[in-house]
Amino acid sequence: MAQEQPCSGSVGIVQPSDYLFEEELPLDCGRSLKGVVIRYETYGKLSPNADNAVLVEHALSGDAHLAGYHSPEDKKPGWWDDMVGPGKPFDTNRLFIVCSNIIGGCSGSTGPRSIDPDTGRRYDMDFPIITIADMVRAQERLMRHLGIKKWFCVAGGSMGGMLALQWGVSYPEAVNGTIAIATTARVSSQGISFNWVSREAIMNDQHWLDGNYEEQPQRGLATARMLAHITYLSDESMNHKFGRALQESPASDYDFAFSKDFRIESYLAHQGSKFVERFDANSYLYITRAIDYFDLSDCAEGNLANALKPVAAPFLIVSFSSDWLFPAYQSKELVRALLDNGNDVTYCNIQSSYGHDAFLLETEALGSLISSYLTNLPWEPPE
Amino acid sequence: MAQEQPCSGSVGIVQPSDYLFEEELPLDCGRSLKGVVIRYETYGKLSPNADNAVLVEHALSGDAHLAGYHSPEDKKPGWWDDMVGPGKPFDTNRLFIVCSNIIGGCSGSTGPRSIDPDTGRRYDMDFPIITIADMVRAQERLMRHLGIKKWFCVAGGSMGGMLALQWGVSYPEAVNGTIAIATTARVSSQGISFNWVSREAIMNDQHWLDGNYEEQPQRGLATARMLAHITYLSDESMNHKFGRALQESPASDYDFAFSKDFRIESYLAHQGSKFVERFDANSYLYITRAIDYFDLSDCAEGNLANALKPVAAPFLIVSFSSDWLFPAYQSKELVRALLDNGNDVTYCNIQSSYGHDAFLLETEALGSLISSYLTNLPWEPPE
Repeated sequence: MAQEQPCSGSVGIVQPSDYLFEEELPLDCGRSLKGVVIRYETYGKLSPNADNAVLVEHALSGDAHLAGYHSPEDKKPGWWDDMVGPGKPFDTNRLFIVCSNIIGGCSGSTGPRSIDPDTGRRYDMDFPIITIADMVRAQERLMRHLGIKKWFCVAGGSMGGMLALQWGVSYPEAVNGTIAIATTARVSSQGISFNWVSREAIMNDQHWLDGNYEEQPQRGLATARMLAHITYLSDESMNHKFGRALQESPASDYDFAFSKDFRIESYLAHQGSKFVERFDANSYLYITRAIDYFDLSDCAEGNLANALKPVAAPFLIVSFSSDWLFPAYQSKELVRALLDNGNDVTYCNIQSSYGHDAFLLETEALGSLISSYLTNLPWEPPE
Repeated sequence: MAQEQPCSGSVGIVQPSDYLFEEELPLDCGRSLKGVVIRYETYGKLSPNADNAVLVEHALSGDAHLAGYHSPEDKKPGWWDDMVGPGKPFDTNRLFIVCSNIIGGCSGSTGPRSIDPDTGRRYDMDFPIITIADMVRAQERLMRHLGIKKWFCVAGGSMGGMLALQWGVSYPEAVNGTIAIATTARVSSQGISFNWVSREAIMNDQHWLDGNYEEQPQRGLATARMLAHITYLSDESMNHKFGRALQESPASDYDFAFSKDFRIESYLAHQGSKFVERFDANSYLYITRAIDYFDLSDCAEGNLANALKPVAAPFLIVSFSSDWLFPAYQSKELVRALLDNGNDVTYCNIQSSYGHDAFLLETEALGSLISSYLTNLPWEPPE
């Protein structure tokens, strides 16, 4: 799918594809979805015996556009372009990389703003509550559609890490290796709380209209995003980058107003307004709920090691020292459970001041861990 | 003012008083306020030479009702009743304790919902932006009104600690000792950010009406409070108290809905709805802005030690190990500045899992520190 470009290291110009399911997709909530579409992109070439396919999972606000450019005029590459391409950690000279937009999303795959084939109208809040396992169930169909029986590796950061972990529990026979970065096996009470407050901000926007808006509830969605953004940074990185600096610099004094006075306020407002241009409010509600419901140990009455028992594959687990959204202790809990099960585990808590965002910023440290893991990962053919 | 009651340790039945300023109160923003009223309560007796007066400062959502009961039917005592009374750390057998509602507040003192004497209408958003120093300036008038030239001690936690610290910088000659608990000398970028998001939640409530509401913007204010409440707890205490427990217990499964499913969601919603019954949305806006603007070092071009130079009095500084709203490193910054200046400083970082809320919960550890500090604090009479 990717065309070769002269610029070294880039997968070049890429195009997304859509895969329409013929059969209904059953969901954890008991309902099912008809006419599901999955949008995806691929980079590199699938080997004749399909032993080099890697699925990369995106985070809450991500999409299928992992690497490369959609057109020669495109100024911004895919969201993990640093990591995916010829000679890069996810090396497209060797690997066939797949990235698909999750169901519930708003970037091509079926989500709450899609048309319900039964009614001919948008689902909006009639969309069923979906789970991380549902998202993985949809991806499993895509895997078969692509002629793949087993992923060489499934990888992801943040919510993407939850999907990567869920793959092992849902389809252990289809996973040869797992990379889970800045993530958790179960979302904490604090994580659930931030999501709750974010949804309140959206649902209390008068333009939300019980989800039946034509135009986005911009301010509510921006508020939700600004709150989330705080949890992606660290206290230390905020002090370092913004501190108490005022927007007007050199500043003589405070504005004595409620408008954006501090530089951090202006930064957050900018993040909020950029977000509403590219992301849908109802999708935000559904995806955060899926995150709340994520507990890998649910299938084993809360025992994480038992839940992971069927997964024989080696893991790479990475946390970041200043990540307080999915703190290192949560990765360590996962590592302990895997060690209890006798799995091969590579674990690193990368020292970084960037907070949760480190998983997108610490490309050098993370890249060498991923490179090394993927280079040394043995291939166990499917049964 | 307090009547004796048989129940040991209580200041008994107390009544608030109002003090109306005759003269305008000048403010940092350049404007001034006419007809300011300060609501306050006192406990114990002022000694003949006025050497036993202690000012206790309340936090963001506090009020003048520090201890005791307003009537025999009153079920709930003042907000720090554990700490204030005969034989308690703030010992009313020995000390004369004063607590006043801050200006900008909504519990008796002049605030945005007060009537502007110039227009005969509520200020609402025409209320001037006030600062922590303005709140202290108003309290200095109350001090003189009460016949006090110098506080034996000024004490407070959280925002109350900011006022206690500000007293030393604004009126060093009027402060004999300072107790600053779970607070900071300057609010961090992260603190400013949470306040920003909270105000967005309020101002985006369609019932806020640019501040001219007759009925509270309940949902926006509740959202702001829920967010703040998360920052008052610790990840650890939330995991311990709520974890991922569902509201229906024993729970068989998720609700697959956006309603309150987890116990923590129900708890937060309860905190939010209780709050809107007792606190005003516009006050919340003004007080959080005052907190944003708090930087004790502003008067000394950012040099905290220089700002504190005029304060000769001994300090008690207390932080809590799991407080991430005003983390221990912020108290330590303050301690270092005071040590550089040669001040007597008692500092303790109390080990606690309660997060910022520890300042209201760790009464035993905190009480013995305060007791010991107040018992040993020498009195330096005013010039």
